[in-house]
Amino acid sequence: MRVAVTGAGGFVGAPLVRCLLANGCDVAALVRSPAALDTFADVRHRLTCITGDLRSDAVGRALELFRPDACIHAAWYAVPGRYQHGIENLDSVVATASLLKPLTRTTCRRFVMIGTCAQYQPVEDSLTETSADNPGTLYAACKQAAWMMTAGAAAECGGTAVNARLFQVYGPREPEARMVPSVIRSLLASKRCPLTTGSQIRDFLHVEDVADALAMVARRTDVTGVVNVAGGRPVAVADVARSIGVQLHRAELLGFGERPASADDPPSLWARPGRLHDIGWRPRRDLPDGLRHTIAWWKERVTNGR
Amino acid sequence: MRVAVTGAGGFVGAPLVRCLLANGCDVAALVRSPAALDTFADVRHRLTCITGDLRSDAVGRALELFRPDACIHAAWYAVPGRYQHGIENLDSVVATASLLKPLTRTTCRRFVMIGTCAQYQPVEDSLTETSADNPGTLYAACKQAAWMMTAGAAAECGGTAVNARLFQVYGPREPEARMVPSVIRSLLASKRCPLTTGSQIRDFLHVEDVADALAMVARRTDVTGVVNVAGGRPVAVADVARSIGVQLHRAELLGFGERPASADDPPSLWARPGRLHDIGWRPRRDLPDGLRHTIAWWKERVTNGR
Repeated sequence: MRVAVTGAGGFVGAPLVRCLLANGCDVAALVRSPAALDTFADVRHRLTCITGDLRSDAVGRALELFRPDACIHAAWYAVPGRYQHGIENLDSVVATASLLKPLTRTTCRRFVMIGTCAQYQPVEDSLTETSADNPGTLYAACKQAAWMMTAGAAAECGGTAVNARLFQVYGPREPEARMVPSVIRSLLASKRCPLTTGSQIRDFLHVEDVADALAMVARRTDVTGVVNVAGGRPVAVADVARSIGVQLHRAELLGFGERPASADDPPSLWARPGRLHDIGWRPRRDLPDGLRHTIAWWKERVTNGR
Repeated sequence: MRVAVTGAGGFVGAPLVRCLLANGCDVAALVRSPAALDTFADVRHRLTCITGDLRSDAVGRALELFRPDACIHAAWYAVPGRYQHGIENLDSVVATASLLKPLTRTTCRRFVMIGTCAQYQPVEDSLTETSADNPGTLYAACKQAAWMMTAGAAAECGGTAVNARLFQVYGPREPEARMVPSVIRSLLASKRCPLTTGSQIRDFLHVEDVADALAMVARRTDVTGVVNVAGGRPVAVADVARSIGVQLHRAELLGFGERPASADDPPSLWARPGRLHDIGWRPRRDLPDGLRHTIAWWKERVTNGR
């Protein structure tokens, strides 16, 4: 199977590319700048690399030459602290349209649009794939817009489409400003770590389990529409921080309540991954194991002085 | 009030511009090509004309100079017979994003996105503004995507947004390939007019009533979200054709059942215009009067040999 992956150098994109390679796929890695390919030094000979802005004609032509069977669209504006309200989200919609146009002219008949739990109307209990949508930020609205276009374009060319909605993804290479890496890095540096009260309920999933789910979904063309990519185990953010604190023996550095909660932070966001369960997917790492793996990755990085 | 109108030279855009002028607005008419401004020969001195592709930087800069209070986005890919499935709908989403980016930098705080009844899941009874969405064509999906982006972008800049969903608009300058003009032109030329069985229930509204509703909605910033622009009087398409036949005394030329129905044509699409009624809007023309006016316009056009 020939799979094109956008945002291939990203936090989710890079392990996804590796997972697809491990599954025997021919992979085209689409990245904006060549530097993003550094992460693939060991597997680069097995990849088709396409470099450039998705809005450029050159990328469209390269996609047509690659002749993908499927495309997983993971590229999106993702600057921590700004991505939820940045007007740049509109550029990501434009990039999506610019990607879909050449794709519908190719052999591609499977479209996986990476979505977000923020597309849902938050509820107190678990979200399911039939829960109501109500994007509350420009980010979520534009992700929803991109999904509408993707589903429509897929139908026009006789293909199928999936909106794979990610919840709280963590693991190696997560942007440093986000919660898990900032707690790990603070504690490794023996610095105090200011946090919200941490009462928010979230659904944490290790990025390699996310990659595994996405690779499975790309192949299973009988699965269409919304798919929750979640572990299905609700946990308070404070408990995740505490688990890191216990593993690093520095729980006393966790400053709960020392940061205000974000207005965009609903009390509860977790999901039953019903459709993934239906096709036999299960996460390989539970939270303590996933955090152990992530902490080890950061320790090695800190030791190497990077 | 300063109002920017995209697609200003179009079937809905042109009477909308005139209606806004009649209401004392300062109007910027955005058109792709200068020829589209011919229709404004008599009022051109009262208009700010902005010519060019909405995706160009030049149009964005001209919008910033105009300093609109509101924007009504009526431009869209609209080739009869092709618009529902054309990949060009993606270009219209891109144009919408390209329009929103400079608008959010201006004084514009009121965003009216022209939508379509095709964004709804068709139902047997009347549609209301709380009816479920389920865009079934690429056209409807992209209109829905554009609405998501518009609502999100408006919220980011502290503005308000409306999705004004049009139903069956008819009147002068309607594209000739559509039902009302093709029936009128056939009968005026004494030619047989092949039609579907005409059993589809639709909600016909004269384009000047549509323009009037849109101009009112642009001003009423207390109205946000979805607004049905409809007459609220369901009628079978066959009865509209018969009414034209009676007025032109050529009903025998109507060939009901001589054309297959389109797969995109649901049995029923009509609406209660609840929110327009709430703000006191009522259509000025009923169907016989609106058709009389439209027939007169076509007669004059045919007489003048155009």
